[in-house]
Amino acid sequence: MKLISKAKAFGGEQRVYRHQSKVTGTEMECAVFMPRQALEGFLCPTLFYLSGLTCSWEEVTMQGLPQMHAAKHGMIFVAPDTSPRGDNVADDSAYDLGQAASFYLNASEQPWADHYQMEDYLTSELPALLVDALPVDEDAIGICGHSMGGHGALTLALRHPSVFHSVSAFAPITNPCACPWGRKAFEVYLGADESLWQTHDACVLVGTAGWKGDILIDQGLADEYLEEQLKPWAFEKACREAGVDLTLRLHGGYDHYYHFIASFMADHMEWHALRLE
Amino acid sequence: MKLISKAKAFGGEQRVYRHQSKVTGTEMECAVFMPRQALEGFLCPTLFYLSGLTCSWEEVTMQGLPQMHAAKHGMIFVAPDTSPRGDNVADDSAYDLGQAASFYLNASEQPWADHYQMEDYLTSELPALLVDALPVDEDAIGICGHSMGGHGALTLALRHPSVFHSVSAFAPITNPCACPWGRKAFEVYLGADESLWQTHDACVLVGTAGWKGDILIDQGLADEYLEEQLKPWAFEKACREAGVDLTLRLHGGYDHYYHFIASFMADHMEWHALRLE
Repeated sequence: MKLISKAKAFGGEQRVYRHQSKVTGTEMECAVFMPRQALEGFLCPTLFYLSGLTCSWEEVTMQGLPQMHAAKHGMIFVAPDTSPRGDNVADDSAYDLGQAASFYLNASEQPWADHYQMEDYLTSELPALLVDALPVDEDAIGICGHSMGGHGALTLALRHPSVFHSVSAFAPITNPCACPWGRKAFEVYLGADESLWQTHDACVLVGTAGWKGDILIDQGLADEYLEEQLKPWAFEKACREAGVDLTLRLHGGYDHYYHFIASFMADHMEWHALRLE
Repeated sequence: MKLISKAKAFGGEQRVYRHQSKVTGTEMECAVFMPRQALEGFLCPTLFYLSGLTCSWEEVTMQGLPQMHAAKHGMIFVAPDTSPRGDNVADDSAYDLGQAASFYLNASEQPWADHYQMEDYLTSELPALLVDALPVDEDAIGICGHSMGGHGALTLALRHPSVFHSVSAFAPITNPCACPWGRKAFEVYLGADESLWQTHDACVLVGTAGWKGDILIDQGLADEYLEEQLKPWAFEKACREAGVDLTLRLHGGYDHYYHFIASFMADHMEWHALRLE
């Protein structure tokens, strides 16, 4: 974990790390906000935030203002990258495939499988690296995310409840098997067998795996992707049928982007803080 | 005032306008956050924020998170551009001269004088346009800014106390006649006569013009420009000698950039809200 930048913020420190990943076979970057308590060495609850298509760790770090709320709650805030990157890493000219569009799974198909192993990276390698290097309380790690990253947060939490102890999302892709973004990515990364796709679909997973706690989702109703790609009502129904306690907040007038995320970041951070204490 | 984008944020609306400026002879862009009260048509106190070198309205709008605090206080937040722009507008390859580096004055020298009339734009044309189009309370307009924009805020407030009723700054250039950024810009925009420069130097102006209220400045002590360019102690001394009540907060560990600004944005917004009511 090589520190490549740092800046004081809200009494803590916003850092960016770079490290060689054995899992992806590439260098990975990751932004970490350290509240004052973490700088003083106290074990801290930690929130992972997975970003959406076309983004990196940078947008939420600079535009979501997580630092204010993380400082208030004494939480470490971790923003990983959205995929492996590099000249030798498979890519696609489409914005919704390849670099910055990993969908946070382990690809089984070539040419993707060599580097696109984001599920292992985010649920095993990166948490271990962070716990080793920083005062991350491994028994108090939560996960949230936006859009493709909301899909990542929901599915990684549901598939790895021993790693993630709380989960929330902003405008997540909830039912990827039934939307164009998800179907395109799953076919390319996972192959033609749709039964495998279902193990990465939050609407299916919440029924098969359940969830030990409750779930928070915020969704803007002026979001251009609401009907075709995000389908929060599908997840609401799946949670209700599975007996999982979902809070789904639908916000008139809000769109898909960072003003929407920033508007509700405080609520998500408090939600996780209350559940990770 | 043509609306070119909008997004809901914190119950209000973040807008970007474009308009033809008679003063600069160019199209100008300007970001405006409208709190809920303004959307409902109530006259609102309004804060102008002038950005620093290399920036436009965009950085503070996306990275400073003024919307949260403006919504809380029911204030309109206006982020103008840092200079006229365009292919037909004089420019320089240096980052500290030309487009995005106007120093917020009326240039008297060519080739700058044709378009670089930012003082008239910000103190006359833009306030009038905003008051005409939006529920801006013209008797409750404050101004703040960062770095070159801190210089702009201080000097425009001191030179136009009937326009701006409160003033604060983040890491401002306080004594441009005595720092490289200021001396370079003033010679190019105003010519060789240094007596003219002094009428745009906050340290001089606070002694000659005084100020009707108090002034807030935040300054990071890990700011790379502190000693050579910003010199807050020069302004502290000038205010003390002029009998003007300055609050100068020096923050160990903070640098010059947006994590610093965001960390103290809430305090500046509250400062202006309390003085503009």
